[in-house]
Amino acid sequence: MKIIPGPASKQLGEQLAELLGVEATPLIFKTYPDGECYIRIEGTVQDEKVVIVQTTSPPQDARLIQLALIADAAKRHGAKKITAVVPYLAYARQDKVFLKGEAVSIEAVSRILKAVEVDSLTTVNVHQEKVLAKFPFPAKTVSAIPLLSEYFRQKGFDQVFALAPDDGALWLAEEAKTVLGGECSYLEKHRDLHTGQITMEKKPLDVAGKTVIIFDDVISTGGTIASAAKLVKELGADKVYAACVHPLLIGNAEKRILEAGVEEIVGTDTVPSRVSKVSVAPLLSRELT
Amino acid sequence: MKIIPGPASKQLGEQLAELLGVEATPLIFKTYPDGECYIRIEGTVQDEKVVIVQTTSPPQDARLIQLALIADAAKRHGAKKITAVVPYLAYARQDKVFLKGEAVSIEAVSRILKAVEVDSLTTVNVHQEKVLAKFPFPAKTVSAIPLLSEYFRQKGFDQVFALAPDDGALWLAEEAKTVLGGECSYLEKHRDLHTGQITMEKKPLDVAGKTVIIFDDVISTGGTIASAAKLVKELGADKVYAACVHPLLIGNAEKRILEAGVEEIVGTDTVPSRVSKVSVAPLLSRELT
Repeated sequence: MKIIPGPASKQLGEQLAELLGVEATPLIFKTYPDGECYIRIEGTVQDEKVVIVQTTSPPQDARLIQLALIADAAKRHGAKKITAVVPYLAYARQDKVFLKGEAVSIEAVSRILKAVEVDSLTTVNVHQEKVLAKFPFPAKTVSAIPLLSEYFRQKGFDQVFALAPDDGALWLAEEAKTVLGGECSYLEKHRDLHTGQITMEKKPLDVAGKTVIIFDDVISTGGTIASAAKLVKELGADKVYAACVHPLLIGNAEKRILEAGVEEIVGTDTVPSRVSKVSVAPLLSRELT
Repeated sequence: MKIIPGPASKQLGEQLAELLGVEATPLIFKTYPDGECYIRIEGTVQDEKVVIVQTTSPPQDARLIQLALIADAAKRHGAKKITAVVPYLAYARQDKVFLKGEAVSIEAVSRILKAVEVDSLTTVNVHQEKVLAKFPFPAKTVSAIPLLSEYFRQKGFDQVFALAPDDGALWLAEEAKTVLGGECSYLEKHRDLHTGQITMEKKPLDVAGKTVIIFDDVISTGGTIASAAKLVKELGADKVYAACVHPLLIGNAEKRILEAGVEEIVGTDTVPSRVSKVSVAPLLSRELT
């Protein structure tokens, strides 16, 4: 097996190689002045099972094309089988036709990866697991919520109120509860299909005096977490924390969340960021052995 | 037939629709705060032959993904056949393995378009025509050099010295000569495969006192054109012009070229820019009828 750390997940890819006891195959990656990228695999992949580690957090499109070019190079130079490890999978939210005329972006992405001969894919906490069933090759998602919960447990957290910002994320809070004990619940979030505007319903939650950890798969602009945090603070929560697998943290998301009264934001290295305090390398390593 | 002007070629697509006497099918195009794009076709494409007009000039990767998503949407909503009109085709220069381990980017791009069910492709002055023969669907390139030459002819130019910056572009200068009369030649350009550094060989050219127009397919950072212009100025050329099909004009390319003594830069709208004085709409319209 050869591990190729892509430019977007160099550190994670190298950690993964180390955990698996294989050498990371280096890549020459350049961006030309006009913005086109250049990919060259150093070292041989002939007849090897190749694992490409490349996240597709922003800039998503560039990183998707980089991934496609690495797969092209690997196959062209003799790779027997290609597994794409895509810690954060872009476009997973557009997983069906919500309004007539729309693209189903995640299906297009899966076909693009198939076209460059990706044979299988592993991702972490994809937004909706069911999208993977439509992929034209075996694709699976693993959950980093236990690792995130363990981070809190090791800091002495116990019997917390694990909160999901919407019912789709409830299972994340439930998963956290199995590690941290305590209780869990969710909020009601509504998204306007035309404007994208999000509103959060006020819901009576028994959080007074308790430690609340809001769990979500992605933090993007931070609007959802900030609204949820304000709500539980109003309901008398003692301390509020935010945990997410994919800390995209667009713009001033971090500031926005902290200003809403959140004590700490904890994310993983599926998206390298200032809050990536938990590595998914051990999780991915188990999947690849 | 339905023409869908993509976000990167909205004006050209609309002009093309007008020339063909068909209505342009509007597209809702949005970019989410995290950078993912959203595509929705307004109006029906059911059982239609659909032409998507979308250039892939910088940001190339984003525009490629947009094109892929438009094709996905068109096919998903019933399009019978999809033609991609890609006025500037990105990644065309990486058309073979120059060094072991490299991706062949343009082949990967062609397979990506095939994956989203593009049935045929038309582009303008692709860097090397032969790359299209390897596409997994019919693909052709048309030349905008006659239109560019016509621009100069109508301004009163006659019997010029048409110069190509390297032998690969000589045919562009030859094509210009058939419209403008005069003579043509080329310079010797060398590119270091590892560093990308370009050097231009000094070559005795009979340009003294003459009007020189340098013809090239792409102007990227302007280095090639600037070097060529300086060279012919040293050889005593009277006035020097630069004509290109695809005016990428990265960074301070325009300034660099003008400072090298070029009187005027003329490009087409394959890449919308300040020097896009010639439209390829009539050329593409002929190809689609």
